[in-house]
Amino acid sequence: MRFYTEYLTFKTRHHREFINITGQVESALQKSGIQEGMILVSAMHITAGVWVNDAEDGLLCDIDEWLEKLAPFRQDYRHHQSGETNGDSHLKSLLVHHEVVVPVTKGRLDFGPWQQVYYAEFDGQRAKRVIIKAMGE
Amino acid sequence: MRFYTEYLTFKTRHHREFINITGQVESALQKSGIQEGMILVSAMHITAGVWVNDAEDGLLCDIDEWLEKLAPFRQDYRHHQSGETNGDSHLKSLLVHHEVVVPVTKGRLDFGPWQQVYYAEFDGQRAKRVIIKAMGE
Amino acid sequence: MRFYTEYLTFKTRHHREFINITGQVESALQKSGIQEGMILVSAMHITAGVWVNDAEDGLLCDIDEWLEKLAPFRQDYRHHQSGETNGDSHLKSLLVHHEVVVPVTKGRLDFGPWQQVYYAEFDGQRAKRVIIKAMGE
Repeated sequence: MRFYTEYLTFKTRHHREFINITGQVESALQKSGIQEGMILVSAMHITAGVWVNDAEDGLLCDIDEWLEKLAPFRQDYRHHQSGETNGDSHLKSLLVHHEVVVPVTKGRLDFGPWQQVYYAEFDGQRAKRVIIKAMGE
Repeated sequence: MRFYTEYLTFKTRHHREFINITGQVESALQKSGIQEGMILVSAMHITAGVWVNDAEDGLLCDIDEWLEKLAPFRQDYRHHQSGETNGDSHLKSLLVHHEVVVPVTKGRLDFGPWQQVYYAEFDGQRAKRVIIKAMGE
Repeated sequence: MRFYTEYLTFKTRHHREFINITGQVESALQKSGIQEGMILVSAMHITAGVWVNDAEDGLLCDIDEWLEKLAPFRQDYRHHQSGETNGDSHLKSLLVHHEVVVPVTKGRLDFGPWQQVYYAEFDGQRAKRVIIKAMGE
């Protein structure tokens, strides 16, 4: 069995930002030497997410608007009594989930034609990490 | 270690449709010969989902209505400027997630009494794929 | 390869309740002897969830209110024609997802500073189970 672990660090320019990390996941897979297995891609922070979807700029704007509608910024989250201002970032993270598991077949990410891995930053402008963990043979 | 990969193809009659695929996942597990491990069941398209929940027709209608309320069809998604009309299908996919990981113990899906695996088609009437990938011993 | 499986049982006092189970997941990892791998933590019922987020009481109240807003209790879910009253519990489970996969590196849960595993009960006051399944070397 082979295991390969890599950590990505992001410090986004904007408070919210969605970054296509498919290339980094592919690169980690190549370094792992794994032909068959699975790769876990997981945010290490509780105000960020990881998803698999389309790399289309219009859609990314739609997603951003939609998340703000379903999990809006509000002054009066109870969480803010702890001094934080990012209650909505936690809710957005719960909504899209913080991790994906990607299948690996014949040394490649076994994706359909349009699937791309995204890191979704919901409380950026500071260093945040993502773990890529590959496991297989 | 054993690895087993199978692809399912769906071409649903309706635009949205929820299909119980527990039998196919069990069948893949048997073919794999795996006694202990995990099975990844993952949509290969970005307008479909996979979930684990109840096989109850009333609930499936409730889920459909609820998803349409939280991630409605709209004419004016920015994504539609690319020529698409399925912005809501992407959002529904993000909401329910596109994959599940099922535990395998003693050669069986280690599920509670009511857990069933569903493929959720949000933009059907054309061929769409799901990957089942089992990994274990 | 090592595999380790453990079942937790919860019978919550309240209808909805969120329980930090990070300690139980760590304990299962130690018993497994696994240094590198992954742990699946998955609700075995269809009216419960598992998530990774912050252990902050105010936020937990915010999450509860937010879930009730997005997936409210209603009398008139079709699912209730089957005699059930927990339609909203199913929807809440779909929203937060029923499972997480936790990376294991050097014998420890490879988490960021604030990540904690939570069991989210949406239809409690009766015995409900969670499976912890570790896989690795």
